[in-house]
Amino acid sequence: MRVRNKPWAKELIEQNPQYVVENPESHKGKWQERFEKVQPLHIEVGSGKGRFIVGMAKQNPDINYIAIELEESVLVSILEKQLEEKLPNLQILHVNGSALTEYFEAGEVDLLYLNFSDPWPKTRHAKRRLTYKTFLATYETILVDNGEVHFKTDNRGLFEYSLVSFSEYGMRLKQVWLDLHASDFEGNVMTEYEEKFSSKGQPIYRVEAQFVK
Amino acid sequence: MRVRNKPWAKELIEQNPQYVVENPESHKGKWQERFEKVQPLHIEVGSGKGRFIVGMAKQNPDINYIAIELEESVLVSILEKQLEEKLPNLQILHVNGSALTEYFEAGEVDLLYLNFSDPWPKTRHAKRRLTYKTFLATYETILVDNGEVHFKTDNRGLFEYSLVSFSEYGMRLKQVWLDLHASDFEGNVMTEYEEKFSSKGQPIYRVEAQFVK
Ligand SMILES: C[S@@+](CC[C@H](N)C(=O)[O-])C[C@H]1O[C@@H](n2cnc3c(N)ncnc32)[C@H](O)[C@@H]1O
Ligand SMILES: C[S@@+](CC[C@H](N)C(=O)[O-])C[C@H]1O[C@@H](n2cnc3c(N)ncnc32)[C@H](O)[C@@H]1O
Repeated sequence: MRVRNKPWAKELIEQNPQYVVENPESHKGKWQERFEKVQPLHIEVGSGKGRFIVGMAKQNPDINYIAIELEESVLVSILEKQLEEKLPNLQILHVNGSALTEYFEAGEVDLLYLNFSDPWPKTRHAKRRLTYKTFLATYETILVDNGEVHFKTDNRGLFEYSLVSFSEYGMRLKQVWLDLHASDFEGNVMTEYEEKFSSKGQPIYRVEAQFVK
Repeated sequence: MRVRNKPWAKELIEQNPQYVVENPESHKGKWQERFEKVQPLHIEVGSGKGRFIVGMAKQNPDINYIAIELEESVLVSILEKQLEEKLPNLQILHVNGSALTEYFEAGEVDLLYLNFSDPWPKTRHAKRRLTYKTFLATYETILVDNGEVHFKTDNRGLFEYSLVSFSEYGMRLKQVWLDLHASDFEGNVMTEYEEKFSSKGQPIYRVEAQFVK
């Protein structure tokens, strides 16, 4: 995600430890303590500017959400939204999605979202895709038994790859959408990328895949 | 498939028992005897007018093919093509794809094709779809261990359904194409429906799904 350099981002983040978690390792197994209520925990890996996760947290007050984003300069936009909304069921985590087992206890997460993940189209970069098998193994560990990954993207190549990757890993595809916006799917919350690409007429792909114990 | 009534179809079929198999049950377990050479056996269920299977048989002389079609008035077009081509590796079978275990021995078939199968869009007709689980169970029986089903269609709803049906059945998706004609897939042989729908600009979906022993 291309963004302007934001020298003030670091400062704003440091000033808001109630929203952007410090020392994430220290919360492993205790994430519910960061929220007002103990309720299902859904996380998104690669939240970008946070339109989706903030929208979901508003729409579903009975679910706790954690936005995970690697880039400080992008993550600060999630924080800015949260500073306006002050949602009690949203936390922001500045870590790498490849290391989730360091921050979450086995079975601590109820559902994991991936939205418009970087496609890494070159075959030699397949390992960097957030649906590559090593990432799936990480997700499986931190998710509840029979936990689910809900993934959407406009990128055909990444979606084709991901369906196969889920399947080869032994996951079950519970539902597939090949044109989400033409379907009767209810309550869709658009991401920044989704708004951009769907307005160009590109179909949005979506899948709900489940780990099988 | 809408076709004109063809009173002469029955006659032409009866006159060519070397191509359109009579008493299909009697060949169960012995299909290789109907061909010049013993070589892998690929079948297509719902061949329509036969453009695909005739093209495949021409393109791959080292594979034996059986076209399976329910409607006499459509099947006769496969026969007409074969009367021109006289391919030694193509046979035509006038039976219902739901009853394949009556005509094929367990493990007798190496690969099964489905192309532009009737979509049966109403949920209450799901059982009629050629990718419904009862059909998959039939295919699994007659296919070799770890046998594959190769399916293409322009129908988004049927493709979404079929990916899930394969997956729920426990099959692995080996490869998925969400726009076959924009991909680098080589040697594609178009079906009649494929030509019609792709010329209207609709993407063609394709999947290779494998039974797992
Ligand atoms: C293409 S953007 C999509 C952003 C947003 N989900 C949307 O749909 O608008 C992908 C985002 O994922 C983040 N990202 C990529 N790899 C990551 C990783 N391993 N861990 C956490 N975030 C990652 C990137 O920094 C970027 O902000
Ligand atoms: C929509 S057409 C497609 C024909 C061809 N595959 C193509 O792509 O041009 C479907 C064909 O499947 C045949 N069919 C449908 N159900 C069948 C069944 N249970 N067994 C055999 N053929 C069937 C129909 O008669 C029809 O010719």
